[in-house]
Amino acid sequence: MTDIGIGIIGGGYMGKAHSVAFSAVGAVFGTALRPRLEMIAALSPASAERYRKAFGFRRAAKDWAALVADPAVQAVVIASPPDTHLDITRAAAALGKPVFCEKPLGASVEDARAMTDVVEAAGVINMIGFNYIRTPASQFARRLVAEGAIGDVTWFRGEHTEDFYANPTAPASWRTSGDGNGTMGDLAPHMINAALALIGPINSVMAEIETVHSDRDGVSVTNDDQAQMMCRFSNGAMGHLFFSRIATGRKMGYIYEITGTKGAIRFNQEDQNALWLYKAEGPEAERGFRQILTGPAHPDYEPFCLGPGHGTGYQDQIIIEARDFLEAIDTGQSKWPTFRDGLAVSEIVAAARASQATGRWVSV
Amino acid sequence: MTDIGIGIIGGGYMGKAHSVAFSAVGAVFGTALRPRLEMIAALSPASAERYRKAFGFRRAAKDWAALVADPAVQAVVIASPPDTHLDITRAAAALGKPVFCEKPLGASVEDARAMTDVVEAAGVINMIGFNYIRTPASQFARRLVAEGAIGDVTWFRGEHTEDFYANPTAPASWRTSGDGNGTMGDLAPHMINAALALIGPINSVMAEIETVHSDRDGVSVTNDDQAQMMCRFSNGAMGHLFFSRIATGRKMGYIYEITGTKGAIRFNQEDQNALWLYKAEGPEAERGFRQILTGPAHPDYEPFCLGPGHGTGYQDQIIIEARDFLEAIDTGQSKWPTFRDGLAVSEIVAAARASQATGRWVSV
Amino acid sequence: MTDIGIGIIGGGYMGKAHSVAFSAVGAVFGTALRPRLEMIAALSPASAERYRKAFGFRRAAKDWAALVADPAVQAVVIASPPDTHLDITRAAAALGKPVFCEKPLGASVEDARAMTDVVEAAGVINMIGFNYIRTPASQFARRLVAEGAIGDVTWFRGEHTEDFYANPTAPASWRTSGDGNGTMGDLAPHMINAALALIGPINSVMAEIETVHSDRDGVSVTNDDQAQMMCRFSNGAMGHLFFSRIATGRKMGYIYEITGTKGAIRFNQEDQNALWLYKAEGPEAERGFRQILTGPAHPDYEPFCLGPGHGTGYQDQIIIEARDFLEAIDTGQSKWPTFRDGLAVSEIVAAARASQATGRWVSV
Amino acid sequence: MTDIGIGIIGGGYMGKAHSVAFSAVGAVFGTALRPRLEMIAALSPASAERYRKAFGFRRAAKDWAALVADPAVQAVVIASPPDTHLDITRAAAALGKPVFCEKPLGASVEDARAMTDVVEAAGVINMIGFNYIRTPASQFARRLVAEGAIGDVTWFRGEHTEDFYANPTAPASWRTSGDGNGTMGDLAPHMINAALALIGPINSVMAEIETVHSDRDGVSVTNDDQAQMMCRFSNGAMGHLFFSRIATGRKMGYIYEITGTKGAIRFNQEDQNALWLYKAEGPEAERGFRQILTGPAHPDYEPFCLGPGHGTGYQDQIIIEARDFLEAIDTGQSKWPTFRDGLAVSEIVAAARASQATGRWVSV
Ligand SMILES: NC(=O)C1=CN([C@@H]2O[C@H](COP(=O)(O)OP(=O)(O)OC[C@H]3O[C@@H](n4cnc5c(N)ncnc54)[C@H](O)[C@@H]3O)[C@@H](O)[C@H]2O)C=CC1
Ligand SMILES: NC(=O)C1=CN([C@@H]2O[C@H](COP(=O)(O)OP(=O)(O)OC[C@H]3O[C@@H](n4cnc5c(N)ncnc54)[C@H](O)[C@@H]3O)[C@@H](O)[C@H]2O)C=CC1
Ligand SMILES: NC(=O)C1=CN([C@@H]2O[C@H](COP(=O)(O)OP(=O)(O)OC[C@H]3O[C@@H](n4cnc5c(N)ncnc54)[C@H](O)[C@@H]3O)[C@@H](O)[C@H]2O)C=CC1
Ligand SMILES: NC(=O)C1=CN([C@@H]2O[C@H](COP(=O)(O)OP(=O)(O)OC[C@H]3O[C@@H](n4cnc5c(N)ncnc54)[C@H](O)[C@@H]3O)[C@@H](O)[C@H]2O)C=CC1
Repeated sequence: MTDIGIGIIGGGYMGKAHSVAFSAVGAVFGTALRPRLEMIAALSPASAERYRKAFGFRRAAKDWAALVADPAVQAVVIASPPDTHLDITRAAAALGKPVFCEKPLGASVEDARAMTDVVEAAGVINMIGFNYIRTPASQFARRLVAEGAIGDVTWFRGEHTEDFYANPTAPASWRTSGDGNGTMGDLAPHMINAALALIGPINSVMAEIETVHSDRDGVSVTNDDQAQMMCRFSNGAMGHLFFSRIATGRKMGYIYEITGTKGAIRFNQEDQNALWLYKAEGPEAERGFRQILTGPAHPDYEPFCLGPGHGTGYQDQIIIEARDFLEAIDTGQSKWPTFRDGLAVSEIVAAARASQATGRWVSV
Repeated sequence: MTDIGIGIIGGGYMGKAHSVAFSAVGAVFGTALRPRLEMIAALSPASAERYRKAFGFRRAAKDWAALVADPAVQAVVIASPPDTHLDITRAAAALGKPVFCEKPLGASVEDARAMTDVVEAAGVINMIGFNYIRTPASQFARRLVAEGAIGDVTWFRGEHTEDFYANPTAPASWRTSGDGNGTMGDLAPHMINAALALIGPINSVMAEIETVHSDRDGVSVTNDDQAQMMCRFSNGAMGHLFFSRIATGRKMGYIYEITGTKGAIRFNQEDQNALWLYKAEGPEAERGFRQILTGPAHPDYEPFCLGPGHGTGYQDQIIIEARDFLEAIDTGQSKWPTFRDGLAVSEIVAAARASQATGRWVSV
Repeated sequence: MTDIGIGIIGGGYMGKAHSVAFSAVGAVFGTALRPRLEMIAALSPASAERYRKAFGFRRAAKDWAALVADPAVQAVVIASPPDTHLDITRAAAALGKPVFCEKPLGASVEDARAMTDVVEAAGVINMIGFNYIRTPASQFARRLVAEGAIGDVTWFRGEHTEDFYANPTAPASWRTSGDGNGTMGDLAPHMINAALALIGPINSVMAEIETVHSDRDGVSVTNDDQAQMMCRFSNGAMGHLFFSRIATGRKMGYIYEITGTKGAIRFNQEDQNALWLYKAEGPEAERGFRQILTGPAHPDYEPFCLGPGHGTGYQDQIIIEARDFLEAIDTGQSKWPTFRDGLAVSEIVAAARASQATGRWVSV
Repeated sequence: MTDIGIGIIGGGYMGKAHSVAFSAVGAVFGTALRPRLEMIAALSPASAERYRKAFGFRRAAKDWAALVADPAVQAVVIASPPDTHLDITRAAAALGKPVFCEKPLGASVEDARAMTDVVEAAGVINMIGFNYIRTPASQFARRLVAEGAIGDVTWFRGEHTEDFYANPTAPASWRTSGDGNGTMGDLAPHMINAALALIGPINSVMAEIETVHSDRDGVSVTNDDQAQMMCRFSNGAMGHLFFSRIATGRKMGYIYEITGTKGAIRFNQEDQNALWLYKAEGPEAERGFRQILTGPAHPDYEPFCLGPGHGTGYQDQIIIEARDFLEAIDTGQSKWPTFRDGLAVSEIVAAARASQATGRWVSV
């Protein structure tokens, strides 16, 4: 058991989540590498110091560059806004340090490509933060589909819907401008990643992206409120994706439904400890979607609790991520999902924007 | 209280349903006009006689033309396959007899248009059989949306999914050929009607229609297994519709979700006695989708039962239809949905087919 | 196909339900005997005439005695208050006429016993109106338990809860006095019947019966608002039953949960078209309660609709009852549940009252 | 920010859970006191060393006495079997050290009383591990009831049901002997605690406790498989509690339903991020149980995640416990639930056993 110095950039929503995750991951998974909360950086030395104290880091950095350069920081976690992702990645890669980056991979598909190139060229361990796919339920769904439990997939429907901007009178903010902060930049990547992970590559898309409330308190909104796309997977399955930040009533609508020739799967992150499975077998009179409660029989559940149905939560997904990142560093092998997997998502987002611009199907 | 002689053409799935409905509607609703099950027609005099006996009609017709022409038949119900709808309508209209026609309006949009023209020219009472929209829950949903309970609608998602052809080894049949018998002809009309009724006119569509299992036991399948379309409503709302007869696990997936600026509605016909309503009001901590069980407080429930939550079923929808048809005849005023409403649906189906052919958005 | 003259006593909630049922049952089930709505009786000739017109009977009776005595009335349906059940039964039995009686069997266990004796002595067809157990879902549940699908039953929990008297300021009425009108008289019989039908005889009970709101608008309430009992089945299973008319939020809480050594069943009448089944078989990771939607594969569903998941409702249960009553008459064999089955329920109600009086377990 | 040395006794299910909790609690809640994982004890030095390494403690103790006595251990967490609780508590209290003890408080009500006396006499901070009541949902339920949101409570139903011993052929183990390990000792305390916390004191109980499978593989089972009790709360509400370890299909059935004169609440730990609330207000047609997804508007949610509906899990409950224990130590004020609250639960368990023995109601 060796320890490793972790540096986290950003102390907001995700900076905190990763701080907690690296605090807990050793005890949960008994990892070979034990993280040491070495350093945290934020927008100013003062805010970094505040986060340091709150989350229990040894030191606060004066800025992210100092953090990346610090020799005691042996792995870098990027939890700052999308437009900082590329520069930080470049700096870390130049020093050969492993990088974990929050989604989306960068502020644009170009950034994402550059980030992927740079980590691959440098040969550094890299990972992107698609946490929702890591619940025991969704990991199990991937396994079921891969093993053919529902036969050949004919249809996939996914959505990522929340309602934090549903109120038309909510004022504009940094979230209402910038491609990376709109629905396509902020929410879509999680579900696109899920679609790719569950079903496989997407060949082509036909999308609609729109700003429903274009004026908030007299300020123009310059990014999107909701978007949908029809898509075709390379295995032939038909698909549909929907994303919204104005989906009144939906709090964490990371929802998917997969239809196969022998069965079907349904999942809703709002009830993340249940996976619904239908199998077209046994007597007709006894068939139905069954609500499987996650437990030790499902991937990555047991380290959190020995009892089935006792449930894991949001924070536990980030702990699973931390485990994988540490294992990747320990073994010297990047683990899924890497920057390349993040790039694949960004390319679909870009194709959707192109489709929106032309009103036509676009190949990925 | 006067009675009226009803003639039903077809004694299959829907012929029986209408026979039961006209048997029960008087006692349920205490209608002014009391139906008399006068005559039934089918493919042959023998089968018509079989239905006559089973359902309790006075007489069996030797064919549909005899039924329409019979003076004791004062209103005609068409429950035979789509390609018979136009001819029967013509005959009934020529005699000035009220016509109730099962969906889809005809075998094609041209038939639908001709049927609409003929009944309107003749001035006969006419109605089309979109029964699902008549549940107390869906009637109440319409009222809620119309009254602005959920604010301005921003998103509509609808599907009509069943799995009767999900098994790829199920043999071909009459259902696997003919536009009217594919998913777009058979299932889509119900949900398109719901979309129009709940939200309003659709301006444009972008569709994909496909035959997933094109060969069944060596026989070519020539109509569609599933289809999806993005659509834009004239009130500006974005929408998506999906239809499938291969949706493994779905038995009666007439499902819709409506998002508005002040609330949201969810409905699934598989649990037809519940409507889910979210209202963005009251303390944040107490908000949530509420499961409203239908009862006497909802449209057309009380005649079936005085107790809330006791539930209505499929057959009751047809009884409500019968009530409306009788009232239309009695008052001399056609009631919604008329053939024109059926035509509106057929036009959207036609636009979807055009979109599929061109890979582009098509205006309706 | 012969017809049979039906006489219904009572034109309220259940009088209407049976009128509709006998109107529809022939077309639904193609019964050998076809009911003729011959005569209806109510509290006065005037009200009887009103019901006659509304429900479509040939004649109104001046009182129930006239109805029972009328030669064209060949079978009697009792849908009047509990305290009328015994006298009507006596009169019908004396004339050898089949009797269908709404629950509870009489106003007291003594009445119930007398009624059972009289029909059995006279050898007339008799049936009691426990309709809820007749849904396709509950019929299927009975079959599953009987066939051992869930192994040996170890636990049964049942409730019948509604909220029509939940509001403490709702005024007193005829419902708030008389044993037969309290929760134990009005609601308990349905669920006790279900317990007996699903699990088998009950040996002993330990009950609590209480009036929560003993004063309504200055008027004393003299019957019970809610009651619970622990019970022991003769097959050894432990059980619990709960009944309430003040269960705020519950509309039709006819709910049961059955645990066996190999599986479990859950049902809620508020979603009467779904039965939840768990089987302790197959891989642990794929186990879960499955939501079985009723369809043609389940008892008595297909005559109502060919499509699974399309759903039956409250009224359909009464139609199934009518079918069984007609078949019993046709074959000369009373069908379950007979008056004797109703008496078994009344005896458990009586045992519960005795337990409440003594604060001890009471054998049935 | 000061740190405090934590010593945990036991490295099994709960020993690990508390180890993780004390690792994460500082980062999650930014507690004033920061725990230091100082020492862990188990059955042998070898197993303690194994846990030390896995969970990240500084040192392993040779036995629990050494741990309690160690000066660097400033607070003791008891996560060993019930029969060890009393001795450890005595030792810790003698040294004036704060004690957190897992439920049940001791192996018997006598132990529980002795433990309570000893910590109160010594004036040491003490807390008992009823974690389930700490979910944001259940904390919110407590608040709703306390604030009168559902009016006066008339009915409470609670159960704690799991199925880990449902299979009759599962072999005997330490779990199948010893009162503390049967259903009444192991599962009942959680739900009894919930009943007391949600509704208030219980006056009297009438119970049934039984061993369903008394022989497992030729070995006698000497404790209980399932138990039920009717109870009366001192505020007058009627109640029922059920506990089972043989509830096939139930994984974490910590379920309660509370009925009040103005509303009702339902909760199931298997979907711990939802609370169901019914309010008897607003138009009848819009009433229904609403599914409230927990979020920052609910107690103790926000530190785990800023997004509503994103969900907390089992481990997070233990982190909340750790926060309260640390705060209690920091402020010098024990926090709910203390040993006295644990004793109250044990007294109800004892009353239930007395009721079972006599077949009568027993006052608590
Ligand atoms: N995986 C997930 O579930 C979620 C991922 N995210 C992603 O995480 C990233 C961060 O988002 P949030 O935590 O929500 O943002 P936030 O606004 O809560 O926090 C951002 C943090 O970054 C710091 N920061 C900003 N610019 C910086 C700079 N130049 N140098 C150093 N620190 C800087 C800020 O001080 C702040 O602490 C984004 O890429 C976002 O898309 C966000 C929320 C959920
Ligand atoms: N509203 C709804 O829920 C449903 C509507 N439908 C619609 O109802 C119509 C009938 O469909 P089903 O009842 O399912 O078909 P079916 O195959 O069960 O019955 C068709 C009936 O029409 C009779 N028929 C066929 N050709 C005839 C002719 N030339 N003259 C007289 N009778 C003829 C047949 O003898 C048969 O009795 C179709 O338009 C269908 O789309 C069907 C099922 C459900
Ligand atoms: N199976 C079920 O789901 C239900 C069963 N019931 C049972 O049905 C029976 C009737 O209850 P409801 O229909 O709710 O009552 P109701 O009050 O709605 O109707 C009672 C009817 O009986 C008539 N009536 C009363 N006394 C009479 C007399 N002496 N002679 C002739 N007619 C008389 C009244 O005029 C009225 O039409 C009761 O035994 C009740 O427990 C009631 C509701 C539901
Ligand atoms: N709050 C909750 O959700 C739960 C609470 N519990 C409670 O936690 C306590 C522990 O149960 P589990 O963790 O399930 O047991 P376990 O069998 O998983 O672990 C018990 C641990 O105690 C240690 N131990 C046993 N005797 C000891 C001794 N004399 N000295 C030092 N260490 C000793 C063992 O080495 C083992 O590490 C019990 O009181 C149990 O009722 C258990 C499970 C869940």
